[in-house]
Amino acid sequence: MAIEYTDPDEVFAALLNAQLVQPKVVQVWVAEAFNRVLAEEVTSPIDVPAFNSSHLDGYALRSIDTVDATPEKPIALTIRGFIDLGVEPPKNIQAGEAYRVRTGSYLPEGCDAVVGKEDVYVEGEKVRLKEPVRAGAEVVRKGSDVAKGMVVLRAGHRLRAQDLGMLRLLRYTKVKVYAQPIVAVASIGSELTESVEEAEQGKTLNTHAYTLSALIKSAGGKPLYLGIVPDDMQVIKKMVLKALSRSSLLLTIGGSSVGEADLVSKALEALTPTLCKHGLKLHPGRVAGCCVINGKAVLTLPGLIQSTINAFVYLALPLIKKLTGSEASRYDATVRAKLAEDLTFHRFPDFKKMTWVSLKKEDRDLVAYPIRGDSPMLNVLVKADGYILTPPNQMIVKKDTYVDVALVLGLSSLP
Amino acid sequence: MAIEYTDPDEVFAALLNAQLVQPKVVQVWVAEAFNRVLAEEVTSPIDVPAFNSSHLDGYALRSIDTVDATPEKPIALTIRGFIDLGVEPPKNIQAGEAYRVRTGSYLPEGCDAVVGKEDVYVEGEKVRLKEPVRAGAEVVRKGSDVAKGMVVLRAGHRLRAQDLGMLRLLRYTKVKVYAQPIVAVASIGSELTESVEEAEQGKTLNTHAYTLSALIKSAGGKPLYLGIVPDDMQVIKKMVLKALSRSSLLLTIGGSSVGEADLVSKALEALTPTLCKHGLKLHPGRVAGCCVINGKAVLTLPGLIQSTINAFVYLALPLIKKLTGSEASRYDATVRAKLAEDLTFHRFPDFKKMTWVSLKKEDRDLVAYPIRGDSPMLNVLVKADGYILTPPNQMIVKKDTYVDVALVLGLSSLP
Repeated sequence: MAIEYTDPDEVFAALLNAQLVQPKVVQVWVAEAFNRVLAEEVTSPIDVPAFNSSHLDGYALRSIDTVDATPEKPIALTIRGFIDLGVEPPKNIQAGEAYRVRTGSYLPEGCDAVVGKEDVYVEGEKVRLKEPVRAGAEVVRKGSDVAKGMVVLRAGHRLRAQDLGMLRLLRYTKVKVYAQPIVAVASIGSELTESVEEAEQGKTLNTHAYTLSALIKSAGGKPLYLGIVPDDMQVIKKMVLKALSRSSLLLTIGGSSVGEADLVSKALEALTPTLCKHGLKLHPGRVAGCCVINGKAVLTLPGLIQSTINAFVYLALPLIKKLTGSEASRYDATVRAKLAEDLTFHRFPDFKKMTWVSLKKEDRDLVAYPIRGDSPMLNVLVKADGYILTPPNQMIVKKDTYVDVALVLGLSSLP
Repeated sequence: MAIEYTDPDEVFAALLNAQLVQPKVVQVWVAEAFNRVLAEEVTSPIDVPAFNSSHLDGYALRSIDTVDATPEKPIALTIRGFIDLGVEPPKNIQAGEAYRVRTGSYLPEGCDAVVGKEDVYVEGEKVRLKEPVRAGAEVVRKGSDVAKGMVVLRAGHRLRAQDLGMLRLLRYTKVKVYAQPIVAVASIGSELTESVEEAEQGKTLNTHAYTLSALIKSAGGKPLYLGIVPDDMQVIKKMVLKALSRSSLLLTIGGSSVGEADLVSKALEALTPTLCKHGLKLHPGRVAGCCVINGKAVLTLPGLIQSTINAFVYLALPLIKKLTGSEASRYDATVRAKLAEDLTFHRFPDFKKMTWVSLKKEDRDLVAYPIRGDSPMLNVLVKADGYILTPPNQMIVKKDTYVDVALVLGLSSLP
């Protein structure tokens, strides 16, 4: 049975055009919003700080009162009171007056400078200065951190640690984020087992679902592992329908190679999909495919681990990201690195080639070492820090070329 | 009250020498080990694959039987049977014989090559080949992915998605990892509130604990937030003792500035610490400190957010990492970037200076933009992707210099 290979970007574009389910918006407590994707634009309802405030422990004053101060002839200001943290400042300050303040205390109107307590002499109700204080000294201006009306965070942004602090600072208690999409995973194959005892007797231990579940979590989804499904078309069909009723996306692993064992494709075709593609111009990963059934995507990932992961990165990762409200991207970051050796390809000339590399720092340069090893080899991925993509019809990338190495959260690390 | 500033690396070294509690080892299910730090070396107990196996769907054969095959005079081999996935292979293969195999099927001894089914003609029990098959063709060799006895993962390694698959492949059901240390966080200050209503009336909303809790999670710890503690020495002392009985490390936020309000240091000194330092040659962040009480560290982080985070990154982050079994590092990765503008410092000449930068890709170069803004400004951190450290006595870093930008999980992102 001949398989027709399609450009993987075309396949992905077709998927996006297939009117898939859209991300849902939910409200969560700010304390629980870490790593979630914002579904609203965050505009500041307030000025931060709310008033001019002090940068240090000392005395708030009017700079104009200090212009004549010299070591020989210090000037003295009357300490009118103490402004503690978190209290509204007095309305104003009169000529010749000062207020004792703490770091962060709000300043009264008219006060335009603060002097540190280590730079003054205090005698009873008087504070003495031996030199002038410049206007604006040690004053944190109202709204200088965040001005009222300012756009602080944009929708689609994944919330980091400091963003949670910012949301609280802007008085958010809850925040709108995208729901975490449930991503179902099924391992197809009667040869598979979850039991180490059965593996001792020759069966294949299911391993890929562990890796995919972790990657789904890293991408912002919720993995729903459906277990091992035997090579039986009726059972596969039932599993697909059940999975789609409970998730936004189904990933199948294995059972998708060309020929008699390709029960997954047959099962999916029997479920009248609105889109059905099988075969990607991506190496390794060419026997991957996708279908759309009831507005939900089913991605059929090949069973050999590098092909599984490549197809995941190419089709599933951007789709999961899109379902979380993020940009549909195949990486979380890219870094430039110098290729340590020639990279040559002998097959699949008009395919995109995906090569896993390990990264090392050498003389402050980042160097990418391609990892050799056939597509069933998991150890290639264990050694990997990221991947590079070589375009169709390029069969060699020369040593010392600078390449973009794509990094995937949960899979990659940087030296 | 004069404060004596110490080199922050010296302070950290003193902390490490203070016989702090050590990381604990626990066993967890492999499926729950994502992002945990390995506490054992993982050595393979088996060869993967366990036997030579097939790289594709086709026919396993002896290459020597095919040397005379030509299109004019194909050779025919007798199909002796089918070897399904997950079954032990027959003991051997005789001259002139072949076995039908699937991708991943184990090969019998004596068989040294596989031919794809699209390259042969099958007639009844015979498979015909029109050209020779080279020895080793499409054979995945026994142990070629992972050889028995091979060290696959080292202790101290943080488990990524593919590592979970590898652990399963090597038949691990559970794995030894370091326990996640409980890190207590207390916000000190009577001016603080958790209530938006009280913030409207002038109190300061507690925001820093949200950020720190997320950073503790990212570093592999379990945050235990103790809430707001008023400026009362007795209450602070009680809180410290309670916190240390329930956690491996306590972080206090605020209340640590020089002078009358420095109740935290007073409270800690009253608890007869074995080590007590106050004041770091780190800017911003100089009023941070640390104590060791009952073999546990208390880190006193300043209240102005950039100082809080800098002191966290400098002292708390490496300590938490060490408690998780990782290397005591102040970053998760570094990248080289070109400085977009001169960076000049006017104060604290013999201090380390920590500058937050945003990263942009320009002409494939990574460019670091220093973010201006005083240490109370949270928005500096919201705009930040990483930090650079300028050594003591260097008061300028020129535009276009290449600098190392440190990235911190949970705080940083790469363009």
